[in-house]
Amino acid sequence: MRNLTLLTDFYELTMMYGYFLQNKQDEIATFDLFFRPYEESNFCIAAGLEQAVDYLENLRFTDDDIEYLRSTKSFNEDFLRFLKKFKFTGSVRALPEGTVVFPYEPLMIVTAPICQAQLVEAALLNIINFQTLIATKARRITHAASPAGVLEFGLRRAQAPDASIYGARAAVIGGCTSTSNVLCCQMFGMPPKGTHAHSWVMSFPTELDAFMAYADTYPDGCLLLVDTYDTLNSGVPNAIKVFDYLKANGHKPLGIRLDSGDLAYLSKEARKMLDKAGHSDCSIFASSDIDEYVLQALKEQGAKINTYGVGTKMITSHNTPSLGGVYKLANLTVDGVDYPKMKISDNPVKMTNPAVKTVYRLFDKDTDKAIADLICLKDEQIDPSKPLTITHPVERWKSKVVTNFYVKELYIDVICNGKVVYDKKNVYELQQDCKNSLDGFWDEYKRLAQPHQYKVDLSDKLYELKQQLIIAEKKGVNNEI
Amino acid sequence: MRNLTLLTDFYELTMMYGYFLQNKQDEIATFDLFFRPYEESNFCIAAGLEQAVDYLENLRFTDDDIEYLRSTKSFNEDFLRFLKKFKFTGSVRALPEGTVVFPYEPLMIVTAPICQAQLVEAALLNIINFQTLIATKARRITHAASPAGVLEFGLRRAQAPDASIYGARAAVIGGCTSTSNVLCCQMFGMPPKGTHAHSWVMSFPTELDAFMAYADTYPDGCLLLVDTYDTLNSGVPNAIKVFDYLKANGHKPLGIRLDSGDLAYLSKEARKMLDKAGHSDCSIFASSDIDEYVLQALKEQGAKINTYGVGTKMITSHNTPSLGGVYKLANLTVDGVDYPKMKISDNPVKMTNPAVKTVYRLFDKDTDKAIADLICLKDEQIDPSKPLTITHPVERWKSKVVTNFYVKELYIDVICNGKVVYDKKNVYELQQDCKNSLDGFWDEYKRLAQPHQYKVDLSDKLYELKQQLIIAEKKGVNNEI
Repeated sequence: MRNLTLLTDFYELTMMYGYFLQNKQDEIATFDLFFRPYEESNFCIAAGLEQAVDYLENLRFTDDDIEYLRSTKSFNEDFLRFLKKFKFTGSVRALPEGTVVFPYEPLMIVTAPICQAQLVEAALLNIINFQTLIATKARRITHAASPAGVLEFGLRRAQAPDASIYGARAAVIGGCTSTSNVLCCQMFGMPPKGTHAHSWVMSFPTELDAFMAYADTYPDGCLLLVDTYDTLNSGVPNAIKVFDYLKANGHKPLGIRLDSGDLAYLSKEARKMLDKAGHSDCSIFASSDIDEYVLQALKEQGAKINTYGVGTKMITSHNTPSLGGVYKLANLTVDGVDYPKMKISDNPVKMTNPAVKTVYRLFDKDTDKAIADLICLKDEQIDPSKPLTITHPVERWKSKVVTNFYVKELYIDVICNGKVVYDKKNVYELQQDCKNSLDGFWDEYKRLAQPHQYKVDLSDKLYELKQQLIIAEKKGVNNEI
Repeated sequence: MRNLTLLTDFYELTMMYGYFLQNKQDEIATFDLFFRPYEESNFCIAAGLEQAVDYLENLRFTDDDIEYLRSTKSFNEDFLRFLKKFKFTGSVRALPEGTVVFPYEPLMIVTAPICQAQLVEAALLNIINFQTLIATKARRITHAASPAGVLEFGLRRAQAPDASIYGARAAVIGGCTSTSNVLCCQMFGMPPKGTHAHSWVMSFPTELDAFMAYADTYPDGCLLLVDTYDTLNSGVPNAIKVFDYLKANGHKPLGIRLDSGDLAYLSKEARKMLDKAGHSDCSIFASSDIDEYVLQALKEQGAKINTYGVGTKMITSHNTPSLGGVYKLANLTVDGVDYPKMKISDNPVKMTNPAVKTVYRLFDKDTDKAIADLICLKDEQIDPSKPLTITHPVERWKSKVVTNFYVKELYIDVICNGKVVYDKKNVYELQQDCKNSLDGFWDEYKRLAQPHQYKVDLSDKLYELKQQLIIAEKKGVNNEI
């Protein structure tokens, strides 16, 4: 396990030092990790929790780390001794990976002594932002490709090694069947996928020689890349010769792969050629700068593609390569008394929700489909036997009475007082969890273009607390402790 | 050192297995790693070589790796024994980090037994693509910010941990003064930078209390974030009180930081307030979703900002988050005979340049500014004492006679027959190398919008070889070995 303790912004350490000098180490802070409305998608798929938990569990400053921090001449020896004994003793509640999550709903809620809670801000954001971004993009891409499958092929264009590994993991949670990334497969128990490159074909005297050599290497499940020279005049006819040979010898070839040119036209023509030659059991794989919009267009034009390999556009979330997750102070407990905190801003989008909270998802009893989410104070209970009035988070005149519903609280405990209580799941279990979470929503919320807006409301108690804090701040009372 | 040997696409391994079964292991392949024209910038800044060399030097399949590959049931025991003894015995020539590089010019040229050269494709692309992308983006951003400095602040939005670390490294090569990322600073010997967050301010009863506590923590070099509540009515006045107090006690405050709102307006107003209060020696730092275009606009409006913190938009290269680097077979040596190879495509952009090559940069003797680059066969020499005719790579009627010039060959040997001969440099030396490389170009090539097109020509010998191979291919001779 890598030690990522120094994977932090320097200001987390300077603030910790300040809290330490001010004797504020025993104050207990609660931070919410959440994202604001995100241009690319109306909801996200939560991912990265396993790596976030690993990170928190392994937090410790090594002797080298302490020596390094001493060399910055920014801290005194008392503080360095404090760091030497440092570990994470706090508690974390989180959305399970694969959960559909909306803006302003915390993905993680970290409650810990303030120095601990502060240190972990940057690394938690780094881990959760990226995997959630990619799981979300993969959901969109696999949604658009369906019923064709999608393989993750982005290693060479991913933003450094970790992005290829954890991005492929997140892509599988979001719906991809597997990845070409061998290290990721080894780490997370997935079957590695791949065939051969153009360079294989170019290293033989002729394309047919190259195909025959590959068929000799993998007579069963042979997949041939047909676009090195000329897809329809050379690649597909040569592949058909090889498939004839393989079948004559009792083997079952897998199919062909297109990697350039017009995939709609080429796949339809190749499909006809393969079918005519008696290879209708052979599949067509395609790759070439694909994203959800290209997939929709290919589907519309009747492309005959069974499986897509998607690289650059998914592994970088190319249209929007960052999720603007933030980590904001929601509560401070001093000598046992809670002081709810919020960021006040002239920009309503940047206002945060104060206090320790939870989120309930309300489902219709007859359809099992989600009706709305309700962000509440942590101790609020909902009685589903009574009609419930839910109200827009800002436009309070917009409200709705909900009946015939049941509720699910979205959070699980993952760390309790420093002890990890989170059971890791295999990525394919997480993929199924994601599918289940998505199945709880009507298609209207899930379409890619202009989806219907899902209600994420605030409870009356949370709304009132928020107004009190805003008014107090505007009066200059400044939210005194 | 992490072992990234399995950081490869599965098809590299299946091809290696095929080459092994075909007894082609002793064929020596040369691959070029290069990028094609890239929408965001007319040139790139080469970066990532140090990590690429580390990766090649540390290639080995551990027992766990072998066991894992056995479990995929895709390889025989002979091949697994071959992998057990595997190491990189080839040679690599490369552009030094910080070099200005144009489309089609190889960043790395890898010559090795074909199994070795094939295995490393995906990881080398991953490493070089990303760091080159970010160094290039950082060059654009620091160019636009100049004379203000730029700090890298992107850890929380970087695409997983490695991207934050190696992205920050590349950003410094491209011109940033340092980063907030402590782990990156520890690894590469840079001074970590940072101050405090809004949560620091929110954790105290009042903003002034928070500022005083921070000033007590860092009385020298104190930098205060002034936008938590109200920048001009609360933040700046409170900062001035604290700076008055610090100076009265013999300390030198550093300045203020703006993190939201209109940076042009706020910085001009804050500048006036600081100056009027006698703090004209205090600097103004600013951050908030900045990229090169925002910087140009702020400069145009006379923003009074001394240093920028740039996060998301630089660390992800937000507008174009991938560099489409490729790794293409250029030559195959079989029994001592060279067979130049190229990818033939209907799309001229996708055609590659065959053979083992080098690149010369021609400089004017009087101005020391670059005139053109010339991609040649490796053994071609240029005699600068004679006039040289250089010719457009495609439109051969476009040519130019160059006189009064000198030449620099762009490549250095980094690995010779498996032995690393590359001397690592500190990132600030690489930053200086980058500055020197940029200084070799007229400003007309370096402006951000519609820069003048720099000439990257092909030598006559290379052009003729390319034509021969295309003609042979079209005749169906298929470039026979």
